[in-house]
Amino acid sequence: MVLTDPRIAIVGSGALGCFYGGKLLNSGLDVHFLMRNDLEHVNRAGLRIESNLNGNLALSDLSIHGDTQDIGPCDLVIIALKATDNEALKVLIPPLLKENTALLTLQNGLGNEEYLAGLFGEQRVMGGLCFVCLNRISPGVIRHIAEGRVAVGEFSGSPGPRTYDVELLFQRAGISCKVSQCLMTERWRKLVWNIPFNGLAIASEGLDTGAILSDRHLRARACSLMREVIEIARCCGHELPLSLVDEQVVLTEGMGAYRPSSVIDYAKGNEVEVEAIWGKALRMGIEAGAEVALLGALYDEICASVGSRKCKSG
Amino acid sequence: MVLTDPRIAIVGSGALGCFYGGKLLNSGLDVHFLMRNDLEHVNRAGLRIESNLNGNLALSDLSIHGDTQDIGPCDLVIIALKATDNEALKVLIPPLLKENTALLTLQNGLGNEEYLAGLFGEQRVMGGLCFVCLNRISPGVIRHIAEGRVAVGEFSGSPGPRTYDVELLFQRAGISCKVSQCLMTERWRKLVWNIPFNGLAIASEGLDTGAILSDRHLRARACSLMREVIEIARCCGHELPLSLVDEQVVLTEGMGAYRPSSVIDYAKGNEVEVEAIWGKALRMGIEAGAEVALLGALYDEICASVGSRKCKSG
Repeated sequence: MVLTDPRIAIVGSGALGCFYGGKLLNSGLDVHFLMRNDLEHVNRAGLRIESNLNGNLALSDLSIHGDTQDIGPCDLVIIALKATDNEALKVLIPPLLKENTALLTLQNGLGNEEYLAGLFGEQRVMGGLCFVCLNRISPGVIRHIAEGRVAVGEFSGSPGPRTYDVELLFQRAGISCKVSQCLMTERWRKLVWNIPFNGLAIASEGLDTGAILSDRHLRARACSLMREVIEIARCCGHELPLSLVDEQVVLTEGMGAYRPSSVIDYAKGNEVEVEAIWGKALRMGIEAGAEVALLGALYDEICASVGSRKCKSG
Repeated sequence: MVLTDPRIAIVGSGALGCFYGGKLLNSGLDVHFLMRNDLEHVNRAGLRIESNLNGNLALSDLSIHGDTQDIGPCDLVIIALKATDNEALKVLIPPLLKENTALLTLQNGLGNEEYLAGLFGEQRVMGGLCFVCLNRISPGVIRHIAEGRVAVGEFSGSPGPRTYDVELLFQRAGISCKVSQCLMTERWRKLVWNIPFNGLAIASEGLDTGAILSDRHLRARACSLMREVIEIARCCGHELPLSLVDEQVVLTEGMGAYRPSSVIDYAKGNEVEVEAIWGKALRMGIEAGAEVALLGALYDEICASVGSRKCKSG
């Protein structure tokens, strides 16, 4: 192993960061959280993961910090910040780096690996796709709604020893994790879900996934969007099966009344990851000569909803 | 374009090499064939591609050679040799090389890119998967039975200008071609078909694909093998959909009484690509901890059929 007894930092301790960081910590690993809003509360009351699937998990006496300088150099940095906060990584990451520090982004959408590679060198960058449903229901309390695998891979080059080490660390923490030979195809696979469901939840002014699927018109629109995204991915060189559409509908029905994180952000007036989820995919589709009518219309609706100031003209 | 007016060599002018080389030549490109068995016949009578799908194509006055030294340096070398003849590439390729010569292997199975990379450097190596049904029915006569796309990609690193140039050259020649971001996943996608259908055709002592699907037992075995190969691929980091199984059955039914090249080789007493198609996949599956019972049994049967001298112990 190249990641023996690794020192791990979690940058961005929202639902995703707390869930995976908490699981890794619970497996006995040395995990340090960068936390902003909930820092004091979690220091006092600990972290709680509620899951009907795996049982509940309560963690106390965590190593929580408001600044990465208090964490110091790590072997593995897991980035679970919202993509709209990526600018902050310029300052947050350097104190965590030593020679072979791996940067693993678990963020949504397109462009995060490229951004990290531009700042810190592509050799450091790994990515992970989390096919999971999580919500932060109150400070320090994460609800785990639907199980999902993690696909982990290298941004440049083939999987190597550290990739398989990360897979093993996650597996030992009870997380279903698998090395992917093709990280970017997995990104597109996740967008097949995020684009329609996060998008229609915002465009419908806050409907959950169950309500979207119960509405005949929105359900049909979600399916058409999924087909269009699969075809855009194909034009960009990522072959995904059309059968994903039906599979995703069945999976999503199993989620019940799930509210994707984007719509929670939207409802709270927080910034929404418009470019990472919809904007970059749209532009890549246009560049590849794909049909993008449905994605384009959805992007316009989302931009109108969140306010044009937050959308680039692209 | 980095491949402007390219000089192209076809190394291995069997059904695959003659079909793609003939199409590229017919589109106006400068194509040179390395041919062994049929050289004199094709020099005299030309090349004929018979297709119910695209119409027939007759080509004469081709540049055909028995030695790559008579062809000389090229920009693009398309390798369509049987994988069992790979040893010959050590001698065949060097006369075709200049500084930026790209080597595009259209061969079946696993290990061909690695072999070329070991000999000539990974930067030169590209791969293509041809989802097509072709048979050489007599010297210089190729029958095109089922249309299929070509997925073309880079062995190391991401697709670049030359990858998109090859895509364009193929498309201009009337070949459905698409750059793949993940060449090795496409290799496994093709193995999902080749492993059961080429394999059961040999194990059944020569049944065609139509006959395999008409036999209740063999049809079930083909489907179980496809499911196992999809799961092996998944364990090796290549996510393929289970829906491939049904899709492949439908596509294969459309091929009629097709005899895969392996079974034609087998029937003629020629060497069969046992390691490239079955052996390497089996060993990779074992290494990845996948269930390989069905592939293992098929491999043993094929080894017994073709004679143990041609199978490595693995």
